[in-house]
Amino acid sequence: MKEIQKWNILQSRLVFDNPWCQVRQDEIQLPNGQVIDDYFITIRPDVALVLPITQAQEIVFVRQYRHGVGEILLELPAGHFYPERETGASAAARELREETGYVAPQLIKLATLYDNPVKDTNLIHVFLAENVAKFCEQQLDITEDIEVVLIPVAEVMQRIFKG
Amino acid sequence: MKEIQKWNILQSRLVFDNPWCQVRQDEIQLPNGQVIDDYFITIRPDVALVLPITQAQEIVFVRQYRHGVGEILLELPAGHFYPERETGASAAARELREETGYVAPQLIKLATLYDNPVKDTNLIHVFLAENVAKFCEQQLDITEDIEVVLIPVAEVMQRIFKG
Repeated sequence: MKEIQKWNILQSRLVFDNPWCQVRQDEIQLPNGQVIDDYFITIRPDVALVLPITQAQEIVFVRQYRHGVGEILLELPAGHFYPERETGASAAARELREETGYVAPQLIKLATLYDNPVKDTNLIHVFLAENVAKFCEQQLDITEDIEVVLIPVAEVMQRIFKG
Repeated sequence: MKEIQKWNILQSRLVFDNPWCQVRQDEIQLPNGQVIDDYFITIRPDVALVLPITQAQEIVFVRQYRHGVGEILLELPAGHFYPERETGASAAARELREETGYVAPQLIKLATLYDNPVKDTNLIHVFLAENVAKFCEQQLDITEDIEVVLIPVAEVMQRIFKG
């Protein structure tokens, strides 16, 4: 295995600092000694993502408008959290309950993924929630308008294999 | 299916504008009429990602330092491109050749994925490249230090199923 070296951070400062958006500009030194003074990183909180499956073997999706791409999308329940304040499992359970009104007897950690490791700081923590059931109404933020959509696991697999 | 409405953009301006990093601040109106004046979107070029497989059924990975998370990662070859200047297939072939020195007789489009549809504008275009073969040396950018790592498909599947 080739020895790949990390970059040396010479200086780091927040060049855009808003509660909803933070950009960091790093002055870095490459392993070959060259200095680059404008490497930008977006600082983002981690994401908890849940794969919720009902006892009837249906996956609980959420359908909502996503302003980054300007489209209405079908997704798994997910949301941001700050690992220093909350565990991934707690955030996953909270997002599931708030976005869908479903709760899970337990959450199993499936994986920790990188989101965009080149430009973003955050990780995605993926949880499996089996035997979820409707427990309460959705508790949505002001910007959220979410439809809960149940699709049988078998149909989801079929759709995936069909591309 | 519930009718989910898109947001209305009242105003949109670049609040951080660097060739390597662009942030847009939108003033948007929610379907319920409420106005939010600080919705931030990161404008990013699209990504072409290749799953390159050799005739010997090995996947061609790249191993490199990723400054967003500060880690050395094993990934599939990928890179940014501008859809108005280059097709996804052409970008995928170019990134494969530049990062690994491998070329493919043909590229098959597998999927178009959203990257982070909440906060980023870009898409990820995924291509399958079968029967790739080493053709030339890597052509790396100044910031790139990339090790090419071949791993048998069977071993990759095993590792995935093991988590």
